[in-house]
Amino acid sequence: MKVGIIGITGSAGGELARLLLSHPEFELTEVSARSEAGRKVCDVFPYLHRCQLTIEPEIGSADFFFSALPHKSSAEICGPLVKKGKRVVDLSADFRLRDRALFEQWYQVEHPHPELLEQAVYGLPELHCQQIASAKLVGNPGCYPTAAILALAPAWSSGLAGHNVIVDAKSGVSGAGWTPTRDTHYISMNENTYAYSMDAHRHEPEITQELNAIKPQLRKPVELTFTPHLVPMTRGLLATCYSRALEATSQDQLLEMYRAYYANKPFVQVVDQPPRTKWAAGNNMAYIYPHYHERTGQLVLLAAEDNLGKGAAGQAVQNANLMCGLPEEMGLSMSALFP
Amino acid sequence: MKVGIIGITGSAGGELARLLLSHPEFELTEVSARSEAGRKVCDVFPYLHRCQLTIEPEIGSADFFFSALPHKSSAEICGPLVKKGKRVVDLSADFRLRDRALFEQWYQVEHPHPELLEQAVYGLPELHCQQIASAKLVGNPGCYPTAAILALAPAWSSGLAGHNVIVDAKSGVSGAGWTPTRDTHYISMNENTYAYSMDAHRHEPEITQELNAIKPQLRKPVELTFTPHLVPMTRGLLATCYSRALEATSQDQLLEMYRAYYANKPFVQVVDQPPRTKWAAGNNMAYIYPHYHERTGQLVLLAAEDNLGKGAAGQAVQNANLMCGLPEEMGLSMSALFP
Amino acid sequence: MKVGIIGITGSAGGELARLLLSHPEFELTEVSARSEAGRKVCDVFPYLHRCQLTIEPEIGSADFFFSALPHKSSAEICGPLVKKGKRVVDLSADFRLRDRALFEQWYQVEHPHPELLEQAVYGLPELHCQQIASAKLVGNPGCYPTAAILALAPAWSSGLAGHNVIVDAKSGVSGAGWTPTRDTHYISMNENTYAYSMDAHRHEPEITQELNAIKPQLRKPVELTFTPHLVPMTRGLLATCYSRALEATSQDQLLEMYRAYYANKPFVQVVDQPPRTKWAAGNNMAYIYPHYHERTGQLVLLAAEDNLGKGAAGQAVQNANLMCGLPEEMGLSMSALFP
Amino acid sequence: MKVGIIGITGSAGGELARLLLSHPEFELTEVSARSEAGRKVCDVFPYLHRCQLTIEPEIGSADFFFSALPHKSSAEICGPLVKKGKRVVDLSADFRLRDRALFEQWYQVEHPHPELLEQAVYGLPELHCQQIASAKLVGNPGCYPTAAILALAPAWSSGLAGHNVIVDAKSGVSGAGWTPTRDTHYISMNENTYAYSMDAHRHEPEITQELNAIKPQLRKPVELTFTPHLVPMTRGLLATCYSRALEATSQDQLLEMYRAYYANKPFVQVVDQPPRTKWAAGNNMAYIYPHYHERTGQLVLLAAEDNLGKGAAGQAVQNANLMCGLPEEMGLSMSALFP
Repeated sequence: MKVGIIGITGSAGGELARLLLSHPEFELTEVSARSEAGRKVCDVFPYLHRCQLTIEPEIGSADFFFSALPHKSSAEICGPLVKKGKRVVDLSADFRLRDRALFEQWYQVEHPHPELLEQAVYGLPELHCQQIASAKLVGNPGCYPTAAILALAPAWSSGLAGHNVIVDAKSGVSGAGWTPTRDTHYISMNENTYAYSMDAHRHEPEITQELNAIKPQLRKPVELTFTPHLVPMTRGLLATCYSRALEATSQDQLLEMYRAYYANKPFVQVVDQPPRTKWAAGNNMAYIYPHYHERTGQLVLLAAEDNLGKGAAGQAVQNANLMCGLPEEMGLSMSALFP
Repeated sequence: MKVGIIGITGSAGGELARLLLSHPEFELTEVSARSEAGRKVCDVFPYLHRCQLTIEPEIGSADFFFSALPHKSSAEICGPLVKKGKRVVDLSADFRLRDRALFEQWYQVEHPHPELLEQAVYGLPELHCQQIASAKLVGNPGCYPTAAILALAPAWSSGLAGHNVIVDAKSGVSGAGWTPTRDTHYISMNENTYAYSMDAHRHEPEITQELNAIKPQLRKPVELTFTPHLVPMTRGLLATCYSRALEATSQDQLLEMYRAYYANKPFVQVVDQPPRTKWAAGNNMAYIYPHYHERTGQLVLLAAEDNLGKGAAGQAVQNANLMCGLPEEMGLSMSALFP
Repeated sequence: MKVGIIGITGSAGGELARLLLSHPEFELTEVSARSEAGRKVCDVFPYLHRCQLTIEPEIGSADFFFSALPHKSSAEICGPLVKKGKRVVDLSADFRLRDRALFEQWYQVEHPHPELLEQAVYGLPELHCQQIASAKLVGNPGCYPTAAILALAPAWSSGLAGHNVIVDAKSGVSGAGWTPTRDTHYISMNENTYAYSMDAHRHEPEITQELNAIKPQLRKPVELTFTPHLVPMTRGLLATCYSRALEATSQDQLLEMYRAYYANKPFVQVVDQPPRTKWAAGNNMAYIYPHYHERTGQLVLLAAEDNLGKGAAGQAVQNANLMCGLPEEMGLSMSALFP
Repeated sequence: MKVGIIGITGSAGGELARLLLSHPEFELTEVSARSEAGRKVCDVFPYLHRCQLTIEPEIGSADFFFSALPHKSSAEICGPLVKKGKRVVDLSADFRLRDRALFEQWYQVEHPHPELLEQAVYGLPELHCQQIASAKLVGNPGCYPTAAILALAPAWSSGLAGHNVIVDAKSGVSGAGWTPTRDTHYISMNENTYAYSMDAHRHEPEITQELNAIKPQLRKPVELTFTPHLVPMTRGLLATCYSRALEATSQDQLLEMYRAYYANKPFVQVVDQPPRTKWAAGNNMAYIYPHYHERTGQLVLLAAEDNLGKGAAGQAVQNANLMCGLPEEMGLSMSALFP
């Protein structure tokens, strides 16, 4: 199948290229970007020396598209493609939130194609694989929501976890994209850890939307405190999620519940120790450890992933596999780069 | 005043040497270590080339001692010194917990000198400066407790913060000391973030001891969930603390409360943005940002420090200054190494 | 083809596992190690969660073996396997030097199987692909020699480069293996760069052996000054090689000579700018840039590789492909992990 | 003495502020910058919270100035100050090269104040302390030249080292300054090492100017091949310099020559092992190790420093101390931040 990448020069776009160039069924036939149009991929990115494609200002002839543009720009480009019958995985935020008003409130822009929101599917395959399989347009989840939702889903949907939820997340710097700023300068981020966007991170409504969609009846909607942090590494994201257990449980029961929930999910591995972000470097895995803190009755639910892998491009390819009727793991089975 | 360092070869011992070598009133006259006895400090640590002292197996002639030995060994050495009338700041855990049984339960050893516990003072100057000034023996706080207690104290002691407290802390690797292990190997820690000791970290009883000592009457004891994490940096510690606000407040009121509480505390700076660990690299500062999350009523209380500075050796020198009647900031006023 | 890894717990052994687990023709059927025998690979290395093999103390039933043991131990194990007709790629130094006396002088041990030296082939495919294709025993090159020889070979074998050669090399820390020491501790290596083994690095005789084997007639043997350095990164190796040009040349001629020499070599890419180690992270590429410094007539010849990739496990798989009549690139065509 | 910093927002400017704020005799009374004028230093740089100065667009009332502006801008501002009788240490390249034409050729700009070149002194105190003591205007050396010249001077000026000199240097990223670019982005530099500016680095003419000024009579001028590299660390610079020994020598003789040359130079420490950049983190030291490679007769001369310390701001303060008749080490005696 011929596929194209829209916005190849960003961090997710580059990772998509890396994955698609060795995918057995997807053939990367065209790529676009606003900033380097006219140059060859192998000249802009010497490490992709096998890719002789020229970066185009605009593309549209492939059958399937991945868009890694920023929000708004992405919907502007993807909208017409979807209407022409192309299938699209959009890695921006444009098709993640089902509620247009919510999108416009958090992103402070008018949605370019609100009429497509109804058919768009939130591309978290562990929750929505049926819908994704028949979707034409998938809104690929953000990196934080992927980790947070996967860590919380079993305990929350079962009614074990209370509605006050804290997500304390630690991300590598590639989550901030390639735009050079004083804050993402090597000498600023090296040997540095800090919280940011403490009550306004745009990934928050994604987490609440998805958790509320799977909340047990009669339970209050989730009340989320989300604190993202930057840590000095390129890739990797760890979500440490807290919620009080509403019923008696034990570490063993909790592990069993999680293992059952994610049985047959090839990209979620439930482990019995705190997972390390490095275990997922460069691949599409999420490692999840649910922990029951006996003295306080707190659930401490951990998920580790590569923010560019399961948190972005890897998950996009997983979605594309499902949308195209291919095996879910195709092109995604490499082990992590370790050490 | 003649001072000695017991256990100079560990990470806190080395930092003590760095600070004491440029302290205007303390003269470093003797140092000991078990592993490198007989060699000169400048040969073992070429970067301390100005220090011609020989590392001794045992010392005792100075007037004032800093011990950076591991727990138990430290009390064994410090006990006799205290009894001879020497003043001691012990950086190990041996004299931090007032309750001998609690110590022996968490550390799984018999305390070598329980008779000294009563006179030992918990060396957090922002809470106990009077007692420290007259103490002969100070138990220097752990790195995590220093950050967590400083972040929580104003909101907790005033009754604003509820008794369910989460401390999600991120530490640089020097907190693990110099002992080489597979986990502290460069290639293991680089590009890696993870939680550890999820329900058994020994700094936990320190935090609860100190918070309970300042809890408002009629309030329940603190119920603490403490999750320490390692992040890939050498120095730096960030504590992100969560507790529900029990009363209506605002961001402005909260900041004001914190500023009032730490007025005239030279090593605590209350800031109005999330602090970065790098702001404190190599010095004795703690940067604190109290945040009120309006939508959920959560307090998110942040403290950043250098785990070897305010979290260990810097604070030890601050304590020593107070114990010796010197200005609290003496020898500690350098700006952070930034970038 | 059934393959086994001897010494899976070292850094090269782990990388071999990563590569072999996704190789289309090699099936990893057994693995051994001295330190973790009896445990499952997926328990020792959670990131290899798909590998259910148990680590054995000893193995021998596969058809083809990769040994990642230290020198001497490796030959002790590989010798009998070769004699039983198994094919072996040995990643240790035991079968790299054709001259037994030279080996024993540099490594200060008696060679366990000197009778096998004659049939062993130095596994640098860009120089010896014919011999490798028919070899039963391949001594896989060291990480530094791979980069240095590839950088120097075209200019040296053509007679352009003089016999005084300097190799100033910079390596990531994984080259030092997994053994924890004070020097490889995260807090020692982070923010640190230095030279080591300044006149006794054991990779030196490999470089001279191979360069002398391709030296032009009448030319003096190479006189090598080799300065290895450690830089604070996990993977990656850059060799900056210096030699005076003996004839007039130009940047264009030099590039052309290099491109011609490496035409049809899939894992060497000659580039027209200084290569970055990160371009090869996690794969088997070597990026080479020959530079002619006009004002001084110096050749400055650069090669960048992943020390665990082309410098170790990647090259071992490349050798195995050739030895087994498989396409040279099989299982090795992934793009680098970038960023 | 009242001192001012012109260009405080750059990397050298920030380091100057750090040093001057704790200097016993210099009082920082005014600071300027083009980008943040009107804001307080403590607001722009929270880690300098003790500094209440407002950043001015222009300053001129102090007695002594440090300029950390880029070249050309720096001379434009410093020229008038010098003419008014202020003393100036200029950290830009404007007053380093005595030959105006050479400056204009390498920097491709017209020199704003060529009439001041004659009185300007090259501020390397280990070579020019007498001249510096009476200078009104000092051109503070570049980071690479400082290390290279200090490493080479004893062997070169004595006639031991031949005139073909290679300087293979490795620098931390702060050498590139604070300007955010794609290349200095954290995710670009992390886990990356590479050469750059391979035959056009502007520090080259400084090195040749200074070496030629101390060359033995009858000896040819130096012929320099200079290869700067970036390595993934914030601070630190290692110069590995190569030159053939023209006479028989030994490791012991070489060390002795170096020790004699730098006797009584407080900021140069000659060591007997390869120095590590981290030994100088945050201070004004240069660690030098001269190595004689017996098999080839090569001298391998190493110097490690902090590029922002001895390579920039530390050396500027050292120069200022000398210019003001203060002890050379005043305000500069702190030990390195280690680990």
